Amino acid sequence: MSEVRIIPLEGIPEVHAGDDLASQIMSAAQRQGLAFENGDVVVVTQKVVSKAEGRIVDLGAVEPGEFARQIAERWEKDARLVEVVLGESARIVRMDHGVMICETKHGLICANAGVDSSNVERLGTVALLPVDPDASAEAIRQGIERPAGVSLAVIITDTFGRPWREGHVNFAIGVAGMEPLRDYMGTFDPAGYELKVTRMAVADELAAAAELAHGKLDRVPVAVVRGYAVPEGCGTAKSLLRDPEKDLFR
Amino acid sequence: MSEVRIIPLEGIPEVHAGDDLASQIMSAAQRQGLAFENGDVVVVTQKVVSKAEGRIVDLGAVEPGEFARQIAERWEKDARLVEVVLGESARIVRMDHGVMICETKHGLICANAGVDSSNVERLGTVALLPVDPDASAEAIRQGIERPAGVSLAVIITDTFGRPWREGHVNFAIGVAGMEPLRDYMGTFDPAGYELKVTRMAVADELAAAAELAHGKLDRVPVAVVRGYAVPEGCGTAKSLLRDPEKDLFR
Repeated sequence: MSEVRIIPLEGIPEVHAGDDLASQIMSAAQRQGLAFENGDVVVVTQKVVSKAEGRIVDLGAVEPGEFARQIAERWEKDARLVEVVLGESARIVRMDHGVMICETKHGLICANAGVDSSNVERLGTVALLPVDPDASAEAIRQGIERPAGVSLAVIITDTFGRPWREGHVNFAIGVAGMEPLRDYMGTFDPAGYELKVTRMAVADELAAAAELAHGKLDRVPVAVVRGYAVPEGCGTAKSLLRDPEKDLFR
Repeated sequence: MSEVRIIPLEGIPEVHAGDDLASQIMSAAQRQGLAFENGDVVVVTQKVVSKAEGRIVDLGAVEPGEFARQIAERWEKDARLVEVVLGESARIVRMDHGVMICETKHGLICANAGVDSSNVERLGTVALLPVDPDASAEAIRQGIERPAGVSLAVIITDTFGRPWREGHVNFAIGVAGMEPLRDYMGTFDPAGYELKVTRMAVADELAAAAELAHGKLDRVPVAVVRGYAVPEGCGTAKSLLRDPEKDLFR
C-alpha cells in the first residue's frame, strides 16, 4: 500500500452564480504547480457548487407561511429561514429542541435540509444544496478531465451532524467517476471468516479526509486526494442512501 | 495550508495477548524508514488493540442464556455470539431485521456492541472492544513518545454503520494527545455570520481518513497521519458521545 495525500487547492476566488468551477479549479491547480493525475479524487465543498449554480436565496424575498411562523416564534428562529428549510424538505424526520432534522428532496437526512447561512457572501442570504449534486460532480469531472487529459473522480461534500455523536463531519452528497462503496462481500479474512463488514462507504471517508485540508475558515473549498485507488465504476451518491425499508432510525 | 499525508505502516506482525503494541509500531516504523515527528497522529484499528489486550472470547466457553437463545433462534444467529453481545451492552437501542444496535458500556452506539468475529486469528473466537479505548490510546502514545522523543496523538478506531446511510466508515473510539473536536464557536465567516457549524469531529475525520490507508484485508492496522495540526489538548473520545438529553435518535 502506498501513501495517500490530501492536497489543499488554494487560491480559488470567491465564486459567483454562473462561474465555471472546473475552470477555476484548473486555474488554481496550475497556479499551485499541481498537474492532475489519473486516479486523483477532486473533493469540492457544497458551498462553492451552490454559489456557482446560483442556489442562493435572499431572505428578504421570502414570505413565510403560517407553519414556518409558528416554528420560528416558538424557537426564536428567522421565519423566512424556516420557510426556506421547509421548501427544501421532502419530510421532517425529527423536530425538537429547536432542531429540524429533514429529509431533502435528494433523500439526504440532515439538519435544516442542508440550508446554510454561513460562508455566503452577503448577510441576509442563505445557500441551498445543489439541485442534483451527482450531476454537479459529473460536470466538474468532465470539465477537468478533458483539458487535463486524465481520468479522475469528483466528490461534492457537505457538513452534517450525526445521531449519538458530537461534532460534524463531511459527507459525500455528490459523486462522479467512481463507486462510492467498496464491497468486501464474499471476501474472507485469513482465519477463514467471511468479512461481516461487507461495504465501506469510501466516498464518505474521502469527504471526511478532505475536510482535514479544507478547514472551515480558510477558504479552501477544494482538495485533491492522491494515491487512493477508488472503487472503479460510474456510481452516484444515491447508493449511499439507505433503503427506508432497512433503516431502523427513520 | 499544507498537504496532509496518510502513511500506512506495514509489517505489523500478527498481534497476540500481552504484546506491546507501541514497540511493534516503533519497530514497523523503523523497518519502513519512518521516523515519528511532532504532531503525527498514529491511528490504530481496534482489532489489534483488542488482541493485544486479550479481549478475545472463545465461543466454545460461552453458555447462552434464555434471551440469547430466543434471539438466536428467531434470527438464525449463534446463540453464544448473541450472549457475548448482550454481555457487552449497557442498552439495546434498536432490535429489528436481525440487527442489534447496542449501546456499549463505553456509551458507543453500534451494531453488536462492537463484538466482531472477522479478522480474529482462530475460527470460533470473537473480539470485544477494549475495556477503556482512551487508556489504550494513551498507553500507545506514551510507549511511542518516550523512545521517539516526539509529541504525538493516538486514535483507536472501529468500523461502524450509520443511520440513513449505506456502508461503514471508521470512527474514533479512543483518543490521546489531542482534543477530538475542533471548536469554531464564536468565529465569524468573512460575510460576518457566526459559523453555525460550531464543532468538527476531527478525530472521526482522522479515523475515516486513516481507513483509506488501512484497507480491510491488507493487514495494515496502523496508519500515521502527518501534516494535520490537531486541536491541542488532552481530550478523550468520551467528548464525541452526545449527551442523551440532547439526542433525537435514542
